Amino acid sequence: MPACGKEEFLKIARDKGFSVVRMGDIVREEASKVGIILTDRAVGSFADEERKKYGYGVWAERTVPRISGELNLIDGIRGLAEVEVFRSSFPGELCVVAIHSSPATRLRRILTRKREDDPANESEFSARDRRELRWGLGEVISLADYIIVNEGRLEAFRENAKDILDKILSGGKF
Amino acid sequence: MPACGKEEFLKIARDKGFSVVRMGDIVREEASKVGIILTDRAVGSFADEERKKYGYGVWAERTVPRISGELNLIDGIRGLAEVEVFRSSFPGELCVVAIHSSPATRLRRILTRKREDDPANESEFSARDRRELRWGLGEVISLADYIIVNEGRLEAFRENAKDILDKILSGGKF
Repeated sequence: MPACGKEEFLKIARDKGFSVVRMGDIVREEASKVGIILTDRAVGSFADEERKKYGYGVWAERTVPRISGELNLIDGIRGLAEVEVFRSSFPGELCVVAIHSSPATRLRRILTRKREDDPANESEFSARDRRELRWGLGEVISLADYIIVNEGRLEAFRENAKDILDKILSGGKF
Repeated sequence: MPACGKEEFLKIARDKGFSVVRMGDIVREEASKVGIILTDRAVGSFADEERKKYGYGVWAERTVPRISGELNLIDGIRGLAEVEVFRSSFPGELCVVAIHSSPATRLRRILTRKREDDPANESEFSARDRRELRWGLGEVISLADYIIVNEGRLEAFRENAKDILDKILSGGKF
């Protein structure tokens, strides 16, 4: 979910040797190819239309060929259909990590960080949460192999993230 | 989700003075009134039909009048529509707690505990997970105020559960 602490997790994963593949970058590339102006709203609508046209797993299917090398972190899974694409493309090798912060904590972070495309108040925040969940992200989180709780103490979150990445690196079963 | 450790959490909550209201009991009572034989499957179908007839929040609406006293733990929320019913019935007083264990951990527990109505193998387990998620439980978990991770060390889980219940008792904001 927005402002859960994903970017911090990506940093730690990079330090551990993971290559980060962002599904959002692939969406933006494709949007750019068909001449869409790269605002969040336009790119989001394009991503949705493509899902409706080609199936909920389409962005995962387009991501698979970008994955190479030993250790990859795929950022931006939005639904179980995508999990299934990755799971069948890399049998026994996919591990789903979710990061959870309470809505109150995420709202506080968003109102503090003031990014341009962030919601400006609680009702916009809730509306965006609902949009994020519409392709089944809640099911992905509920069925994740690991959940990291991130309620604000950054150092604790980092330690937890490192532990989980180490477990994955040591070949945990999924 | 099934076998996440909910029953253990309920025990701890009872020790802390919470009255437990089980939505499942209310479903069974109503099913019994209309003459349904109380197998899991028959009761589940009845619950679903009632949701389709009277709206996704119907079981929450029927639960609200059973809630009295200071401290209540409502067990068995299945979707955001139900959260909304409780939130509007008890403004500022609802706190959603989710418990998460990985599918691998939950499957291991289920195959070990051998309850009569439990799935017998991995494919039945996955099918049941999907059924549990169909009314939007994934969204409830993703938007929970607290998530407790329960990956097996019972003592750690208990400590964590107690901490969170204490936070709630000390009047955390939601």
